[in-house]
Amino acid sequence: MSRVDVAGMDHHLERPRAEWARQMADALRRQITDGHFTDGMLPDERVLGRRFGATRDTVRDALALLRGEGLITRRRGVGTSVVLPKHGHGLDRLTGLAEELTGCGTVTNEVRAAAEVPVLPDAIAARPEVPAGAGGVYVERLRRLDGLPLSLDTSCLTADTGRAVLAGDLAGRDVFALIEEAAGERLGRAEVAVHAVTAAPGTAELLHIQPGAAVLALERLTRLADGRPVDVEAIRVRADRMTLRTTLYRTEGGR
Amino acid sequence: MSRVDVAGMDHHLERPRAEWARQMADALRRQITDGHFTDGMLPDERVLGRRFGATRDTVRDALALLRGEGLITRRRGVGTSVVLPKHGHGLDRLTGLAEELTGCGTVTNEVRAAAEVPVLPDAIAARPEVPAGAGGVYVERLRRLDGLPLSLDTSCLTADTGRAVLAGDLAGRDVFALIEEAAGERLGRAEVAVHAVTAAPGTAELLHIQPGAAVLALERLTRLADGRPVDVEAIRVRADRMTLRTTLYRTEGGR
Repeated sequence: MSRVDVAGMDHHLERPRAEWARQMADALRRQITDGHFTDGMLPDERVLGRRFGATRDTVRDALALLRGEGLITRRRGVGTSVVLPKHGHGLDRLTGLAEELTGCGTVTNEVRAAAEVPVLPDAIAARPEVPAGAGGVYVERLRRLDGLPLSLDTSCLTADTGRAVLAGDLAGRDVFALIEEAAGERLGRAEVAVHAVTAAPGTAELLHIQPGAAVLALERLTRLADGRPVDVEAIRVRADRMTLRTTLYRTEGGR
Repeated sequence: MSRVDVAGMDHHLERPRAEWARQMADALRRQITDGHFTDGMLPDERVLGRRFGATRDTVRDALALLRGEGLITRRRGVGTSVVLPKHGHGLDRLTGLAEELTGCGTVTNEVRAAAEVPVLPDAIAARPEVPAGAGGVYVERLRRLDGLPLSLDTSCLTADTGRAVLAGDLAGRDVFALIEEAAGERLGRAEVAVHAVTAAPGTAELLHIQPGAAVLALERLTRLADGRPVDVEAIRVRADRMTLRTTLYRTEGGR
């Protein structure tokens, strides 16, 4: 389709309902995550329709999208309420979850596995920097914020650091804090990859979401200050509870 | 569950198959996105099983997860092949898509809408910095890499800049490049939020993915060098074709 110039809002009306619903859902999602609805309730369909210049059907489609993501619930006679505040996790600085969510609530960890393993599983040791065949420590934790599941984190740690982490308070603290305590120095940097995936049944059950719901999948290879890899994580984060945020600069000097 | 110490790989065997399948899928996904399978073919189930110390059922579950994400296809007598190379988009610096993918292939844009609008739709003008009631320009483009859909991008631009962008080569160039040409200066910075959502039917059809597939949803508010907001985007990216990547530093000085 080539460029079109449209007078007035006809342009608006020509577009398929599904697309307007998607855009309306985008705007509402942003307002929800920005904490716009301080009482946790969305306006009713009529008000939303006026505000967005949208028909009732479009409003319903938009709300259905947000409900599908688990962001809102709708109850007859009660209205549309925000399920949970969605927290932002900064992508500007390397932080642990509890550290990042300071002031947002209490992070607790259900330690599902924490053990030395004679060989780091290939499933995690695939990084060329992590020596194949070397032993290490495997930790899997289900992390909750104020009692509700937020993420499922697995860590594979190199042997020396890992043993020190095993001796630490895995139920109460970030692995990063335990590593730094053991190493006696701050961590250096981490290479992070962010994927979107749908939740497999086992993961969904642990995170209390529907199988097939969208989750953020993070891979994070963390290094000590001298560059040695120390921790390879695979993290599944409930996408209805957390957004990743960052500020990007156009030029080196712009920062 | 409290911490357990397990001798040997019993720990390995105790864990539910679904979890090992998920981890195996994680490792294979990473290898796929790292371009490990240079001929585009995965080893057969028997070889994968040996490599990961996994049973045939676990291997099949892992491959089913990757197939569900659209990363691989499996054909009897042919084997398991990688559908598409997955590209990395840096989260370190503000770049347009074509700019980011220089050398990876040819980005083309199907301009689905490009018009002045007398009022920026609330759906996009919800940012407090974008004056409500002000006119602007709306652009929607389906972006392809080497002919295959990669993302669906919508931009709402402030009026002056937007008009200049409308006059530019929207089919061939990044909106960022057109803005900078119009402004006669480089952009400043952008606030970015990354969500994972499932694709609505309309979006799925445009992106050639299954409805319900996971997609990365980016919101990006871009500002000129002096801080004025100029472009609000909502972007849906096929999660099977793109990963977001960044390096995070632990301390300010670490960078």
